[in-house]
Amino acid sequence: MTNSFAGLADIRAALADLPAPDRGALDAARARDAVLTKPGGALGRLEDIAIWMAGWQGRARPAIDRPQIAVFAGNHGVAARGVSAFPPEVTVQMVANFEAGGAAVNQLARVFGATMTVVPLALERPTADFTQGAAMAGADCAAAFGAGWDAVDARADLFVAGEMGIGNTTAAAAIAGALYGGDWVGAGTGVAGDALEAKRAVVAAGIARHAAGADAVDILCRLGGREIAAMAGAITRARHLRIPVILDGFICCAAAAVLRQTNPAALDHCLAGHRSAEQAHARMLQQFGMAPLLSLDLRLGEGSGAALAIGVIKGAVACHSGMATFAEAGVADG
Amino acid sequence: MTNSFAGLADIRAALADLPAPDRGALDAARARDAVLTKPGGALGRLEDIAIWMAGWQGRARPAIDRPQIAVFAGNHGVAARGVSAFPPEVTVQMVANFEAGGAAVNQLARVFGATMTVVPLALERPTADFTQGAAMAGADCAAAFGAGWDAVDARADLFVAGEMGIGNTTAAAAIAGALYGGDWVGAGTGVAGDALEAKRAVVAAGIARHAAGADAVDILCRLGGREIAAMAGAITRARHLRIPVILDGFICCAAAAVLRQTNPAALDHCLAGHRSAEQAHARMLQQFGMAPLLSLDLRLGEGSGAALAIGVIKGAVACHSGMATFAEAGVADG
Repeated sequence: MTNSFAGLADIRAALADLPAPDRGALDAARARDAVLTKPGGALGRLEDIAIWMAGWQGRARPAIDRPQIAVFAGNHGVAARGVSAFPPEVTVQMVANFEAGGAAVNQLARVFGATMTVVPLALERPTADFTQGAAMAGADCAAAFGAGWDAVDARADLFVAGEMGIGNTTAAAAIAGALYGGDWVGAGTGVAGDALEAKRAVVAAGIARHAAGADAVDILCRLGGREIAAMAGAITRARHLRIPVILDGFICCAAAAVLRQTNPAALDHCLAGHRSAEQAHARMLQQFGMAPLLSLDLRLGEGSGAALAIGVIKGAVACHSGMATFAEAGVADG
Repeated sequence: MTNSFAGLADIRAALADLPAPDRGALDAARARDAVLTKPGGALGRLEDIAIWMAGWQGRARPAIDRPQIAVFAGNHGVAARGVSAFPPEVTVQMVANFEAGGAAVNQLARVFGATMTVVPLALERPTADFTQGAAMAGADCAAAFGAGWDAVDARADLFVAGEMGIGNTTAAAAIAGALYGGDWVGAGTGVAGDALEAKRAVVAAGIARHAAGADAVDILCRLGGREIAAMAGAITRARHLRIPVILDGFICCAAAAVLRQTNPAALDHCLAGHRSAEQAHARMLQQFGMAPLLSLDLRLGEGSGAALAIGVIKGAVACHSGMATFAEAGVADG
């Protein structure tokens, strides 16, 4: 037993008191940035990223030697309602593909030197159809949150949470609608026409049934899924370990939204890796006040957009930590 | 003697007959993309990039094993007119920094496994102040073009052309204004107020003196600089070798613009690596009809934005060439 998440109160408690970045490291990194051999500000957002990494890693010259990508998989009762272009068996098939190294995120992990952790969550036992009842019991949601918590490698220096779960853009749209109001339903893996309208009706029914009187953690439990709860747990655990996190697409950000509604500072250790082609994702990032690093029309999930952003962050950190100063290089400083 | 660029006619001749991508490899890559374990199109622009790479590399499964970054440096007579926030000595100092491995682009080369080639071009002999006469004689411009041509490693599988040259946003703005009309002057390394107005006047004087009756190659010679001519030569040589090229910022794109005005197909083997914070760069990319891969407010030059984009292209190629197909992974295809 490596965690003690028995009920929703334990999730709320884990979000009550969160560490801040290291102010000394932030100041030292800013001072270093100012004397590197480039015009001030000429590396743009790379400079902000490197300083931010310094704060969370607690060192003036941050490094990325052990990035970790964890992919969480869950099955959804609402998948039976025809909300996805793919059948629910694909979730377990794709878990095998992740484990065999054949999925997109595996290739990106190799390119950027990240370890891969694959966490299937009770795939044989889908969550309940949320139009009929709560997707999860409180204990079930807490266990999934705890599984995410446990999946984070304490030695990682950068963390990506990804997901797989046929039907999970439906769950994410329901969470977003319950938290923020409005319509967050999109094409997901590729539904259109009548199927898209059916998806919209399913989401509306879930929100009508579950949102009244619910706080964000209740919403996660009643409308979410195990992989979404696990991502919430992993992002929270990374915060307690001061490991910086790259957020992926809409489903990852639905998990993040639950954390941010519970504690407005809960995502201070997170960057938006990319902006997905799933339209609701851009609106979610606006809610967070985050500008994505990449915008390349990905809509795959698996952590793929965030994994691609590891390259940008590696570049930012390498420039900051490896460049010569004006004095070291004998270059005139403007 | 590895090239025969003796005059401007040789530059024009090198652009007259350019190879096309391999149609068979393009078709095979498209067919492969359609059966990889992801919803169709879910990797967005990564899919387009991988297929495009397949066409230029002439294989259905492209690879990036030998990316090359070449940085060309030149000195500009117009620098004496106060158009830069840095003194002209910085060009030679930064060349030493590139050679010692201390600049931003060196760190990015390391992160993405690229070789670095540094090519200083007659730094002790700045080009002429183009408000007084042509920046270069035709033979001088052709020699610089040839130096760029020779710098490309024929074994490279991806190429980045970068530059360093105090005063070279002034030269680039003059080239752009002469080619397209309008005002292309921006802050460069950080000029503002009176200095920015002086820069604008210098550019206007250069265009007034040299643009009439000039073709794009004449404009390169009269208003450009050796590093700009060298980038033009390198991009052209890469095309003849069918090596795909990532374009960097405004100055690199001024070189590319000369090629495109000479032969409208001259940039078919090029992608826009990023959109610079130098405002004129975005307009240049619009002229080219190119959407940048990254937009992170870099404005450093050195090839840094394009070098950062190597990570994105490596990710695209790795997904395409390494992923399992639906059949291989036993995943249901929608």
